[in-house]
Amino acid sequence: MSTIGLLTDFGTDGVYAACMKGVILSIDPEAVLVDVSHAITPQNVRHGAFVLQQTALWFPRGTIFVCVVDPGVGGERKLLCAKMGPNYYLAPDNGLLSLVAQQNVPEIVVDISFSEYRGQCGCDTFHGRDVLAPVAAHLSLGVPIEDLGPSVDEMFHLDWKKPRIHDGRVHGHVMAVDSFGNIITDIREKDLRDASLTEVNALELEGTVISQHVRAYCNAPAGTLVWLIGSSGLVEVAKVNGSAAKRLNVEVGEGVVMG
Amino acid sequence: MSTIGLLTDFGTDGVYAACMKGVILSIDPEAVLVDVSHAITPQNVRHGAFVLQQTALWFPRGTIFVCVVDPGVGGERKLLCAKMGPNYYLAPDNGLLSLVAQQNVPEIVVDISFSEYRGQCGCDTFHGRDVLAPVAAHLSLGVPIEDLGPSVDEMFHLDWKKPRIHDGRVHGHVMAVDSFGNIITDIREKDLRDASLTEVNALELEGTVISQHVRAYCNAPAGTLVWLIGSSGLVEVAKVNGSAAKRLNVEVGEGVVMG
Amino acid sequence: MSTIGLLTDFGTDGVYAACMKGVILSIDPEAVLVDVSHAITPQNVRHGAFVLQQTALWFPRGTIFVCVVDPGVGGERKLLCAKMGPNYYLAPDNGLLSLVAQQNVPEIVVDISFSEYRGQCGCDTFHGRDVLAPVAAHLSLGVPIEDLGPSVDEMFHLDWKKPRIHDGRVHGHVMAVDSFGNIITDIREKDLRDASLTEVNALELEGTVISQHVRAYCNAPAGTLVWLIGSSGLVEVAKVNGSAAKRLNVEVGEGVVMG
Repeated sequence: MSTIGLLTDFGTDGVYAACMKGVILSIDPEAVLVDVSHAITPQNVRHGAFVLQQTALWFPRGTIFVCVVDPGVGGERKLLCAKMGPNYYLAPDNGLLSLVAQQNVPEIVVDISFSEYRGQCGCDTFHGRDVLAPVAAHLSLGVPIEDLGPSVDEMFHLDWKKPRIHDGRVHGHVMAVDSFGNIITDIREKDLRDASLTEVNALELEGTVISQHVRAYCNAPAGTLVWLIGSSGLVEVAKVNGSAAKRLNVEVGEGVVMG
Repeated sequence: MSTIGLLTDFGTDGVYAACMKGVILSIDPEAVLVDVSHAITPQNVRHGAFVLQQTALWFPRGTIFVCVVDPGVGGERKLLCAKMGPNYYLAPDNGLLSLVAQQNVPEIVVDISFSEYRGQCGCDTFHGRDVLAPVAAHLSLGVPIEDLGPSVDEMFHLDWKKPRIHDGRVHGHVMAVDSFGNIITDIREKDLRDASLTEVNALELEGTVISQHVRAYCNAPAGTLVWLIGSSGLVEVAKVNGSAAKRLNVEVGEGVVMG
Repeated sequence: MSTIGLLTDFGTDGVYAACMKGVILSIDPEAVLVDVSHAITPQNVRHGAFVLQQTALWFPRGTIFVCVVDPGVGGERKLLCAKMGPNYYLAPDNGLLSLVAQQNVPEIVVDISFSEYRGQCGCDTFHGRDVLAPVAAHLSLGVPIEDLGPSVDEMFHLDWKKPRIHDGRVHGHVMAVDSFGNIITDIREKDLRDASLTEVNALELEGTVISQHVRAYCNAPAGTLVWLIGSSGLVEVAKVNGSAAKRLNVEVGEGVVMG
């Protein structure tokens, strides 16, 4: 019996996620299912990878994450199960696991595309239901990861641009926008220290200069654009009591400069 | 202790579904609750019936489905509990169960409108909370279906137009649009075989002709309109890496012709 | 092991709620998690307070509610755990609990801002994850509420305007709009009796007069605007088979007069 976290781009209507839950509970009725998110931007593997990294570390040791952002379903890409740090991750081999893998070197990775524990329905468009869910449920029941499929040496890694320091300024990127419209970047507090930025004068985002730094959202008047170190240890831009994303109209991937 | 699946048109804000969950857990604290979908088009019984049919078969044997799409709440329609195949279904008698019933002849159907296991609050606008949820929880605890209410001989059946073969072409209908914008029809692979369509030249949907057939979404360039046999065994129309529903602006019920 | 209900303004994308669930299950793997709602209007404490009051009474005795609508996170407001009636409530001290407290006098309230059971991550922007979730999980494990933090004498109470009777008419307010577009007011059936309104001629809402009273939504033709006593015992305005909120364009807080 394990906690099984589901992360998909299936949307909040529940239908496809429900099929996966039904399959899992049919095999392991004791599994504890948790929706991590079903609101990954459709087919956006980078978005899924980021949300997975940000949330996975808060889950119980031994959690099994079933991750489906899979534009290549039915194609050549493998399906993997990886043990990384204390947890297990099942996902298509398209980079969805590549941010978690930066922090936790994979101990063992197996190819479950043709696992003997996959389901019998051989459809080509829903491997979440037909392969990942049943294999995850068997892992939850205690089947050792080594038995799920042949081991593989490499996973596909997306190329993640990292923040870099140039001319005493930190150059980063927008990674996500949260449900409040806060804009989350890839710049960590540590990056600011590494740049010897004892004082940041301003953050620049697509032409807008944000000079007010706060410790918490409530430390500036409503409507103010501020930057702060958010709950993941990353620099974020917020509009107090409002949506910074709506105000600034930014997109994931855009550049952010602090100095 | 059972898996209890909830299918409603309550929307994703959770409030009404939460009341039902609270009622169920008050009676059977061990019930395993799964949201099948709360995004059925409001008061659209046909949509609910289709989603229920598509998802129910993936759940554990013995699952209890509590289904609320109930424009007639407080009126004359009965509330039913039916055993069909391995599962139990509680719903208003308005056709919500009529697609499942096509595949699994009901073994027993009882009228739970005035079940002794219903709740005490006699409000006329939320039978999901006041009747279906408490009766489902008692069923989960082991009360036999026969004890839930008097048996009835007939359920209300919606008239479902079936795909028909005419002039060597299959004429079907749009049944649903999924969260990716894929358009799901009622045409099964078998219908194509029955029409002796060894090769389908094109699918026609409201004036648009789609000639490209693929096995999986990724088998055509981004942006292409394709048709394929989807994960439910039904013909669907997809736009690779995009939304076919947005592109074609179709509605549930519209005609589809393959030939 | 307890039922733990989550009520937040985090939106339906799941990410922040998932972090809280992960934290809770890390401490109490047996906790039964239920999403009450994550669709509280962002930072709208009044909306959260109303939904909490309307839903909490349907949950099992002993349920622990973790409530996060917290525009003042990182500021001076305390974090509280209160025992009220049969249940426990954890929330920022900003009035979120003030409607429940009107019906159930708090037995004991403790300040958990610096509880020894809070998490180790001292971030200033996500106390739901770092304080409320871990403290709730320890309460679920059996830690007595008295041990969670020092007792406090007072909670912050929002000023709730109550319906009043004037000139033989009842003057109330719009409290919420549900997912069907039904407009829920704060006028109870009892208020109508107290006003000796044996017969209500009409309900007036922002210039629109609604004279048709029904017992259930289906008791008038589609499209009709009606008023009825809804499933919470409160007067609501509905459009049969449609959305009254869209038709009337009302906002929470607006006045309603019945007479």
